[in-house]
Amino acid sequence: MLEKLREEVFEANLELQRRGLVVYTWGNVSGIDREQGLVVIKPSGVPYETLTPQQLVIVNLDGEIVEGDLRPSSDLPTHLELYRNFPNIGGVTHTHSTYATAWAQTMFELPCFGTTHADHFYGAVPCTRPLTNAEVENNYELNTGKVIVETFADIDPDAVPAVLVAQHGPFTWGKNAADSVKNSVVLEEVAKMAVFAVSVNPEMRSVPQYLLDKHYLRKHGKNAYYGQN
Amino acid sequence: MLEKLREEVFEANLELQRRGLVVYTWGNVSGIDREQGLVVIKPSGVPYETLTPQQLVIVNLDGEIVEGDLRPSSDLPTHLELYRNFPNIGGVTHTHSTYATAWAQTMFELPCFGTTHADHFYGAVPCTRPLTNAEVENNYELNTGKVIVETFADIDPDAVPAVLVAQHGPFTWGKNAADSVKNSVVLEEVAKMAVFAVSVNPEMRSVPQYLLDKHYLRKHGKNAYYGQN
Amino acid sequence: MLEKLREEVFEANLELQRRGLVVYTWGNVSGIDREQGLVVIKPSGVPYETLTPQQLVIVNLDGEIVEGDLRPSSDLPTHLELYRNFPNIGGVTHTHSTYATAWAQTMFELPCFGTTHADHFYGAVPCTRPLTNAEVENNYELNTGKVIVETFADIDPDAVPAVLVAQHGPFTWGKNAADSVKNSVVLEEVAKMAVFAVSVNPEMRSVPQYLLDKHYLRKHGKNAYYGQN
Amino acid sequence: MLEKLREEVFEANLELQRRGLVVYTWGNVSGIDREQGLVVIKPSGVPYETLTPQQLVIVNLDGEIVEGDLRPSSDLPTHLELYRNFPNIGGVTHTHSTYATAWAQTMFELPCFGTTHADHFYGAVPCTRPLTNAEVENNYELNTGKVIVETFADIDPDAVPAVLVAQHGPFTWGKNAADSVKNSVVLEEVAKMAVFAVSVNPEMRSVPQYLLDKHYLRKHGKNAYYGQN
Repeated sequence: MLEKLREEVFEANLELQRRGLVVYTWGNVSGIDREQGLVVIKPSGVPYETLTPQQLVIVNLDGEIVEGDLRPSSDLPTHLELYRNFPNIGGVTHTHSTYATAWAQTMFELPCFGTTHADHFYGAVPCTRPLTNAEVENNYELNTGKVIVETFADIDPDAVPAVLVAQHGPFTWGKNAADSVKNSVVLEEVAKMAVFAVSVNPEMRSVPQYLLDKHYLRKHGKNAYYGQN
Repeated sequence: MLEKLREEVFEANLELQRRGLVVYTWGNVSGIDREQGLVVIKPSGVPYETLTPQQLVIVNLDGEIVEGDLRPSSDLPTHLELYRNFPNIGGVTHTHSTYATAWAQTMFELPCFGTTHADHFYGAVPCTRPLTNAEVENNYELNTGKVIVETFADIDPDAVPAVLVAQHGPFTWGKNAADSVKNSVVLEEVAKMAVFAVSVNPEMRSVPQYLLDKHYLRKHGKNAYYGQN
Repeated sequence: MLEKLREEVFEANLELQRRGLVVYTWGNVSGIDREQGLVVIKPSGVPYETLTPQQLVIVNLDGEIVEGDLRPSSDLPTHLELYRNFPNIGGVTHTHSTYATAWAQTMFELPCFGTTHADHFYGAVPCTRPLTNAEVENNYELNTGKVIVETFADIDPDAVPAVLVAQHGPFTWGKNAADSVKNSVVLEEVAKMAVFAVSVNPEMRSVPQYLLDKHYLRKHGKNAYYGQN
Repeated sequence: MLEKLREEVFEANLELQRRGLVVYTWGNVSGIDREQGLVVIKPSGVPYETLTPQQLVIVNLDGEIVEGDLRPSSDLPTHLELYRNFPNIGGVTHTHSTYATAWAQTMFELPCFGTTHADHFYGAVPCTRPLTNAEVENNYELNTGKVIVETFADIDPDAVPAVLVAQHGPFTWGKNAADSVKNSVVLEEVAKMAVFAVSVNPEMRSVPQYLLDKHYLRKHGKNAYYGQN
C-alpha cells in the first residue's frame, strides 16, 4: 500500500540524518497522498540506524492508523494540521537542528539577511507565539499545528515553507517529503549564517524587498530562470 | 567476572569517542552492578584507539581494586561518590566536551531554553560552587563528588541527570553506562544551542514550567507517550 | 573542444564540494581560454553528485553558447564581466560558504586581522555597495559584475582576488579555475577566524602595513621565498 | 641519516593534518637530535597529501642544510631560535588552526579558564608583543623566535609549551615532535572553549591558583598520578 510514497518518506527520513540535522531520533518526516487522504510518517522513537520502510506508519487525516504495527511519531497531530490547512504541501519535516533550534529558542523571527535566504524563503521565517498553558496541557501537538497555521494567517505557506515554533524548533514543508527535508537543510544553513552575521553586526538589516523579489522569483514561479526547467 | 557489565562499559566508552565528545583520553565511563556493589571503569590515560574490555578495572564502592592490572581513571572517587548517593543510577560519564565545558567555565547554570533540553533534563542543569582550596588540595576527586551531591540537595538526580562542575566540565549519569553517555551527548547539544541562542538574544528566558512539564513528562514516567513502550 | 580547460573546470567544481564550501548547487566555477576568448562554466542547478565534464557549457565573452546542451549558471554574466575587466584572471568562483556569506550579509569589508589573511589577500577584502532597485530589476547578474568592478576602482584585483557582494556572498578569482577555488577556501577560513576574533575582541584592529607587506610579499612577486619555486 | 627522527617528524606532520589543524600547507613540525645538533623539518609549501619522509630537510642549528633537496619551511629560523633557547624541548609545531589563530589575532593572552587548560598549560598561554617594523623587515622569522623567547623571560617554557604570536598564530613545543603536535591540538581545543565561554560570559575569570596547581601537577612532575606511569 502506497509503496512509492512509503519509499520516498523512508528516503527523506534517512536524508535528514545524512545531512546531519538529527541527533538520535530528534526528527521526523511525513508525506501525503492527497487523492487517498493518507499520510506516511516515521514511527515514534525508532533509531534511524535500524529504520526500515516497513516500519513507517500510514494514517488518515484524522490520525487513525490504517497500516503499521508501530506508534506514529508523537508529532503526528502537528503534521496533520499542516496538511489540512496548507492544501498544496506534500511533505512535512520536523527537526531539532542546532542553529534553527537555537534561533527558535530566542523567539525572534529569522529575518531575510541575504540572498541565500531569499533564494528559498520569500521573506522572514516567522516564529510562532508561545503556546498557552491550556494549549500545552491538552492536545499539545495539535495545538502546535494550530499556532503554526495562525502564524501564517497573512503569510503564504508555499512561499515561506518554514516556521520556528517558539522555544521548540523548526517545522518545514514542501511539495513532497524530499522537498520538505531540503527546506530544513536550507533553514539550518541560513540560521547558522544569521547567528554569525548578528554576532559581527548586531544592527543587521533585512534585504530590501526588490532584492528579495529578484532572488526568490528567479528560482520560483513562471518567470524563474535558475536551473534547467 | 561481570562480563556483561564489562562489555557494556567498554561499548559506552567507545560510543563517547564515536559521538565526538572526547579528545585524546579526556573522558571516562563507568557502570555499576548494584547487587555485588562493584563498579567497572575505564583505566586512566589509556587511548580509546587501543582500549580493550580486558583493560577495564573493577573496583568496589570503597575504591579497592577487585580485578584489573591497570590504575583506574583518576576520576574514580567522583564516580563512586555519585553511586553511593544517587541510588538509582547505573552509569556515570565524564567528558570535556567543547560546549558543555565552555558553559561550565562560565560558572552559570545551563537554563532550560527550549524543548530539546526539556525532553531530557527536568529543569536547569546546575553548576556546582567552586571547590575551596582545602577541598582541592586533599581528596580532590572525592570532594568533586561531594560538591555535586551538595548541588543536588534540592534537585532530583534522576530527573536532572547532569551537572556542570564549575571551571571544569560536565558529569552525567543514567540508568546504565550507555544511558549516561546519551545524557552527555544531549547535554553537549543543548549547551551548543544555548551558546548560540544567548549570542543572538542576551535576554534569553527559560521555558515556562508548563512547557517543561509537558516535554519532560511525555518522554518520562508513567504517562509518557513518546516511543514504542 | 577545450578538453583540458573543461577538465580543469570540472575538477575545480568538484573541489568546491570536497572542501565543504557548497550546499546543494550553491556555487559555480568557470575558467577562461584567453586566446580563444571562450569560457567554460558549470551548468545551472545541476547537482555536483551527478555533474560530468560533458555537461559543462562553453560560451564566448558575450555569453553566447558555443557548445553545450544545458543552460549555463545564472551567474554567468557576473563571471563574464569579471573576465572582461580583470585581464589577468583565468578562473572565477562563486559560493555561499557559511562564514564568508555571513560576513557579506553584514555589509562590512573583511579587514586584514592577521597573517593568514595577509598571506593571501593584500589588504581588506572589500564589500560592494548594495545594488539599486534598478540594477537588480534589469540585468541583475551583469550589474553584480559591474558593481564588483566599481569596487575595485582603486584596488588591484590580482592582489586582492576576492570580494564580498553585499547581502549576497563571495566571489573569488585567480590565475585559473583551481586557483580561484583555493581563494574561496582561504576566504572562508579567514572569515571564520574573523567572526570569532571579533566575538572575543570587538575592538579588533587591522595588521600594520609592514606586516601585511611582509606576509603578502614573501609568498607573492619576484622576491617571494615561500615554497619551492 | 637520522632515520628514526625523520620518521617521527614525518608522522607528526601527518598527524597535524589528521587532527584538522591545517588547511593546505599552513603548518609545519620539526624535531631535533640534541646530541648531533641537527633538526629535521618539513619542506616549504609541500602539500601533506604528497609529502614523503625523504622530502624532509635536515639542518644544523645555524640553519645550514645538511641533507635534503628541498627548501626548508620558511618558519625554520623561528624553530631554531626556540631550540637554541629552550634547552629541554625536542619538537616544535606551527599552525594557523582556526580558534587559536583567531585568539592570536585579538592580541590577548589566553587565560586559564578551566581544568582542560590547566591539565596541559601551567597558566595563561601568553601572546607576544607585536613585532616592530624593523623586526619584520629584516630577519622576520628569526625575530619571531626572539620575541617568543622574550615573552618567556618570566615563564617556564616547559610548563607552558605554547605561545600566541600577535596577529599571526600559535607555536607549540614539547619533548618531541609528536608531543608538540599534541600541544597544538590541546591549544586549539581550549581556545575554542574560551571563545564560547567569553561569548556567554564576557566577565570570565581565570581559575584560582590552587585549582591550576592541582590539575597541572596531577598530570606533570614527580607527584603526578594520572595515567599508568
